[in-house]
Amino acid sequence: MKRKIRMGMVGGSRDGFIGNVHRMAAALDGQIELVCGAFSSDANRSLETGRSLYLDEKRVYSNYEEMILKEKSLPKEERMDFLSVVTPNHLHFLPSKFALENGFHVLCEKPLAFNTEEAEALEKIVKQTGLVFGVTHNYTGYPMVKEAREIIKGGKLGKIRKIIVEYPQGWLSQHIEGEGQKQASWRTDPGQAGISCCVGDIGTHAENLAEYITGLKITELSADISTFVEGRLLEDDANILVRFDNGAKGVIIASQIAAGEENELKIRVYGEFGGLEWLQSDPNSLILKSTTEPKKILRAGAGYTYLSEKAKAHLRLPGGHPEGYLESMANLYRNFAFAVDEHNNKTKQDTDIYDFPTVADGVRGMKFIEAVIKSGKENGEWVIVNC
Amino acid sequence: MKRKIRMGMVGGSRDGFIGNVHRMAAALDGQIELVCGAFSSDANRSLETGRSLYLDEKRVYSNYEEMILKEKSLPKEERMDFLSVVTPNHLHFLPSKFALENGFHVLCEKPLAFNTEEAEALEKIVKQTGLVFGVTHNYTGYPMVKEAREIIKGGKLGKIRKIIVEYPQGWLSQHIEGEGQKQASWRTDPGQAGISCCVGDIGTHAENLAEYITGLKITELSADISTFVEGRLLEDDANILVRFDNGAKGVIIASQIAAGEENELKIRVYGEFGGLEWLQSDPNSLILKSTTEPKKILRAGAGYTYLSEKAKAHLRLPGGHPEGYLESMANLYRNFAFAVDEHNNKTKQDTDIYDFPTVADGVRGMKFIEAVIKSGKENGEWVIVNC
Amino acid sequence: MKRKIRMGMVGGSRDGFIGNVHRMAAALDGQIELVCGAFSSDANRSLETGRSLYLDEKRVYSNYEEMILKEKSLPKEERMDFLSVVTPNHLHFLPSKFALENGFHVLCEKPLAFNTEEAEALEKIVKQTGLVFGVTHNYTGYPMVKEAREIIKGGKLGKIRKIIVEYPQGWLSQHIEGEGQKQASWRTDPGQAGISCCVGDIGTHAENLAEYITGLKITELSADISTFVEGRLLEDDANILVRFDNGAKGVIIASQIAAGEENELKIRVYGEFGGLEWLQSDPNSLILKSTTEPKKILRAGAGYTYLSEKAKAHLRLPGGHPEGYLESMANLYRNFAFAVDEHNNKTKQDTDIYDFPTVADGVRGMKFIEAVIKSGKENGEWVIVNC
Amino acid sequence: MKRKIRMGMVGGSRDGFIGNVHRMAAALDGQIELVCGAFSSDANRSLETGRSLYLDEKRVYSNYEEMILKEKSLPKEERMDFLSVVTPNHLHFLPSKFALENGFHVLCEKPLAFNTEEAEALEKIVKQTGLVFGVTHNYTGYPMVKEAREIIKGGKLGKIRKIIVEYPQGWLSQHIEGEGQKQASWRTDPGQAGISCCVGDIGTHAENLAEYITGLKITELSADISTFVEGRLLEDDANILVRFDNGAKGVIIASQIAAGEENELKIRVYGEFGGLEWLQSDPNSLILKSTTEPKKILRAGAGYTYLSEKAKAHLRLPGGHPEGYLESMANLYRNFAFAVDEHNNKTKQDTDIYDFPTVADGVRGMKFIEAVIKSGKENGEWVIVNC
Repeated sequence: MKRKIRMGMVGGSRDGFIGNVHRMAAALDGQIELVCGAFSSDANRSLETGRSLYLDEKRVYSNYEEMILKEKSLPKEERMDFLSVVTPNHLHFLPSKFALENGFHVLCEKPLAFNTEEAEALEKIVKQTGLVFGVTHNYTGYPMVKEAREIIKGGKLGKIRKIIVEYPQGWLSQHIEGEGQKQASWRTDPGQAGISCCVGDIGTHAENLAEYITGLKITELSADISTFVEGRLLEDDANILVRFDNGAKGVIIASQIAAGEENELKIRVYGEFGGLEWLQSDPNSLILKSTTEPKKILRAGAGYTYLSEKAKAHLRLPGGHPEGYLESMANLYRNFAFAVDEHNNKTKQDTDIYDFPTVADGVRGMKFIEAVIKSGKENGEWVIVNC
Repeated sequence: MKRKIRMGMVGGSRDGFIGNVHRMAAALDGQIELVCGAFSSDANRSLETGRSLYLDEKRVYSNYEEMILKEKSLPKEERMDFLSVVTPNHLHFLPSKFALENGFHVLCEKPLAFNTEEAEALEKIVKQTGLVFGVTHNYTGYPMVKEAREIIKGGKLGKIRKIIVEYPQGWLSQHIEGEGQKQASWRTDPGQAGISCCVGDIGTHAENLAEYITGLKITELSADISTFVEGRLLEDDANILVRFDNGAKGVIIASQIAAGEENELKIRVYGEFGGLEWLQSDPNSLILKSTTEPKKILRAGAGYTYLSEKAKAHLRLPGGHPEGYLESMANLYRNFAFAVDEHNNKTKQDTDIYDFPTVADGVRGMKFIEAVIKSGKENGEWVIVNC
Repeated sequence: MKRKIRMGMVGGSRDGFIGNVHRMAAALDGQIELVCGAFSSDANRSLETGRSLYLDEKRVYSNYEEMILKEKSLPKEERMDFLSVVTPNHLHFLPSKFALENGFHVLCEKPLAFNTEEAEALEKIVKQTGLVFGVTHNYTGYPMVKEAREIIKGGKLGKIRKIIVEYPQGWLSQHIEGEGQKQASWRTDPGQAGISCCVGDIGTHAENLAEYITGLKITELSADISTFVEGRLLEDDANILVRFDNGAKGVIIASQIAAGEENELKIRVYGEFGGLEWLQSDPNSLILKSTTEPKKILRAGAGYTYLSEKAKAHLRLPGGHPEGYLESMANLYRNFAFAVDEHNNKTKQDTDIYDFPTVADGVRGMKFIEAVIKSGKENGEWVIVNC
Repeated sequence: MKRKIRMGMVGGSRDGFIGNVHRMAAALDGQIELVCGAFSSDANRSLETGRSLYLDEKRVYSNYEEMILKEKSLPKEERMDFLSVVTPNHLHFLPSKFALENGFHVLCEKPLAFNTEEAEALEKIVKQTGLVFGVTHNYTGYPMVKEAREIIKGGKLGKIRKIIVEYPQGWLSQHIEGEGQKQASWRTDPGQAGISCCVGDIGTHAENLAEYITGLKITELSADISTFVEGRLLEDDANILVRFDNGAKGVIIASQIAAGEENELKIRVYGEFGGLEWLQSDPNSLILKSTTEPKKILRAGAGYTYLSEKAKAHLRLPGGHPEGYLESMANLYRNFAFAVDEHNNKTKQDTDIYDFPTVADGVRGMKFIEAVIKSGKENGEWVIVNC
């Protein structure tokens, strides 16, 4: 890239958690520069956040419309290239739409929108504008997740038969939304989160991960959803039976009341000849299993010759120097920036290597969420997930 | 106990695996003595097995009827006290029944019978005779499983909300019954195994473990069962949603085509305040999780003061000296022998401490198997499991 | 074997720990029968122990001389075949010697004797009598330890360069000998344990394991020994630099004041092309490392085709059914019994497969202990360990 | 901080590994800005690196003297604040010295210098100038390392008795310096690395970690050093016995020929009442051991109330979102930047919380290296490490 890609941000005030995560991830490789933001609907808070980030105060805005219009009016060589949307779910659609309509690329938090209607509307605009649109399902940014995808694509496990994804968290075991915990408050609020808490927040990561690694699509599902904490307005737990388009069967377990668990996203895939296993809390290992040979532990290491080119292209450090969550997000940001650069400058990137979740993945995520909630409400009726 | 308890065995010829397991487990504590056996329907093989075990050849029989009748005719101080039944499923009922009817206690392999009808018939005879009857769900014999039960019983986790039991194996990933592998052959044969392969063999262990540890009962379930290996006659995989009598939800995953897995039985239980986790391949650890405190690793050790009396009563070695599968089975044998001794000599055992799975557990296991297969055949309809 | 091998025991009263361990290990395979014992110098306690084991009271003795002489006077087809010596260190020599001199084979606890002089005297008598003599360094009885030996013997790691053995325990972190803890009392008593506590008890296991697995011999060592607990009479900690006869270097770390550790015996060996690692608390795994390939986890499983014949010959269960400490000891007993049978009946055993630690290993262990203590007292002077 | 701190860099051309590591770490928090560099002694390579980093070409220099003098001549509000020195060992001293003498703060790679003489000269200049000087022993930047220090400082383990630090790597198992591998070439070259390869590169990290966590100082040591790979000019392996100023004993094992190991830095500390363990490849866990209670696994998580303020101040993400090596280095950079800001603006930082390794730690590291090599050459004579 000839220059840094310029980023604007909507949401992400400094007292929250998610804005910093995105800013650190974007900054890591020195190829993306934060140039402006509407960090909060509270103008003062937005300004304070902008100052703490050493931004030019003229480019700290109090709402996304203002930001998009003002940035559009700046000279081409100054204005932001893309908008990073890190607001709660109900505020994904409008800023994304407005940015696209005004010629800005967009990178949006998951789930893509408040409902499938909005998601499909975004997909349509993306097609019409031809702009770059990414969704931050960052777990597929981990190098060993990409390695897993390559192994299955290469046929080493044979035909895939069974997929188990679990995503247990315990942070909503008590009614902390009642105590004003900020993230809990909006995630359990149907007005901000939509029809789902647990599935929208983490179940959709599980779905995305399963489909990314295996290259398969979920075709139908049967769910048992629960709200264990009294007074909560959305589900906090889901057990889901899933079926894939090649005949494979699976289970997705998502929970926010798995008391004492942190964020133990784990996937296991089994084929005819072997299986693989990846656990987000030990992200630099990928376990390969075989019916005839000893288990192998593949390890992340920038120069490891036994890894695929794709995995190595997403590693920054030699073996034994742990990479983490921020690097997975940074991979997503970097690949997105490559695509923006490609769009802007007609450069050619190897998109097979430098992939990232697109608006289509986002739409799919919304459909998954809606299918789970529908099945859950109908006592586990099998519900078809349209592709 | 004033003398060793005398055991006879039906099944378990020396070229199989399961007979040796039971004999080693029974021998471990020096309180049970193998005195006779009908080890195979092939009289020669039975004799060879008996010789290899240094048995008196007169007490090596070629079928269970002969054994039971001849042993009955021996002086009381010589004849066997109980019959250990280690034959395939279709041969559990008749030997067990005949033994009970002739006054012998019985310890029978799981699943208890070929179908619920047989199982309930046995339960009835047990009640009528007042004899001791055990079922070898040996995983509940592990000390840290007993510790888990005590922890939950003591209320440390609060009300139980979620239970995940997984039991992945990979040994049936190929059509090895077609190559004459002995155990695969009978387990996949409806004539010997009954209506189920995977659920009958391992799913029922998962069910028993979940109910033992939590003290809860599964009330209904919805199952997706599959036969992945072409030409196989019974299911080799099951994903099961379960609901418990206190409102808890759960998942049971059982598979024999999880290629590359050994025998990874694992249970996780979550309550209001914390969770616990036990993994059979690391049986001497029990992980306690909390929403507010660091994870704790409780370890098996005969003298560990932080363990319950019940757990310590099932440990033989000081901390750091791994106990294994055979010890779990030996615990079951020993506790069963205590009960036999209690019956014979009117001694008093602490049955709350020295427990073992009974005929009622066996009946319950059969009902579970039948409910899973029924639900699976009806595309996941919720099926009630009668208590 | 045509009949069970008959065992007598000196030491091991029922209120201690070690006697039961040996009895369970000996009983496991049904090939060894306990026929007599002098379990305690207290005649009553010996008798009570014998009764609890259902022994013929005439064959429960109050001292080893009586036992050996009386057993010798019994008909050949009745009397014990071998003596198992499970007394504290200072009582290894005399019973072993007397048994050998009266024609009995001996299996003796480690360390072999009170000092090298005694150990060499035993070695001499063994040579003169031609009887079978074993020493219970049981950790080399673990199947995956045997696999490790085969891997190195086969040259897969290339020339061995570095060996790290650690054996941290924490049980002597406080002055529990002052509170009358039985095992602590004799192990820290120079009159019963000899010149060493920590090195004699566990350092010698580390030495034996390193030499067994690598096939190398320690030629010289430099030690820093410490007594951390005030009032203790022998060392409770040792850090030892070692050099091997092929030029390899190593470290042995043994500690009884590693507070919070159970019994974490671990060995790592590195050669030109790779390394291996085995940890006693996870005994069914053996980790193979390579400079070019992913780590491999070899697992214990009776039928695993990737394991050596030697490892498989010491496994009783299929993969995923954990074997433990008792099985490692049972392997030692069984192999010893094979050797006794071979001696008695001129049968031919594959001693390369069915090995066990001999009197020569015992002598070597004593020399190692003495070298460490000597070096420790001379502030780490390098001391030669004579072969 | 009112503005970003401006960094210059000497060394770290884009084809190497270390420059990128430092640049990513510095960029992570958005508080440090790279403004200039002399990235290579090859002017073209330096320029290409500068361009790839989007630097102003006028501030890309071909040597450190030019950079320091030109930057000094820039207006105060433009010129760099500090110099990051990431060259090989023999090029640490002169750039650091020249920077300090011209008024720039310095952050220097470890080991601090080519020899103790140089290190002490730097220490003197730092004192004279009053400028900020840091050394990049980044492992002490990990949050759970800081937690370990706080735990020991708080007395939870009682008096410290034993410390084991191991640092096995396998990357120098073959003579790769002979094949031109860049880092191997200079690290094994006495002209660039100094008197030591293995101890200078990783042994010194082990020493720094042990002293940081325990607050103790190594007073004397005895080392066995080896060069296993033929043709190599410096040692590639060291086994070191160490003694601490409170009477504690320890072992430091450092190896670059531990074939198959990545970077397995691990520390274990034992006191009277318990122990702790930290492993760099699982950096977000800290294991606490006790003689009476179950093991506890403390986990990194920005909001975990059971962690110390110090640990939490070095975390960026909530529990379950793995942080890695770059974050540990970023902590060091950030804390260094705070100190620079404090120096520049007379702000007040909590240096007890925001610590980083200083020139004194660097001097100590050099003395440790020299003591190990001296002892190694004298066959393990105990050598005193001057404080």
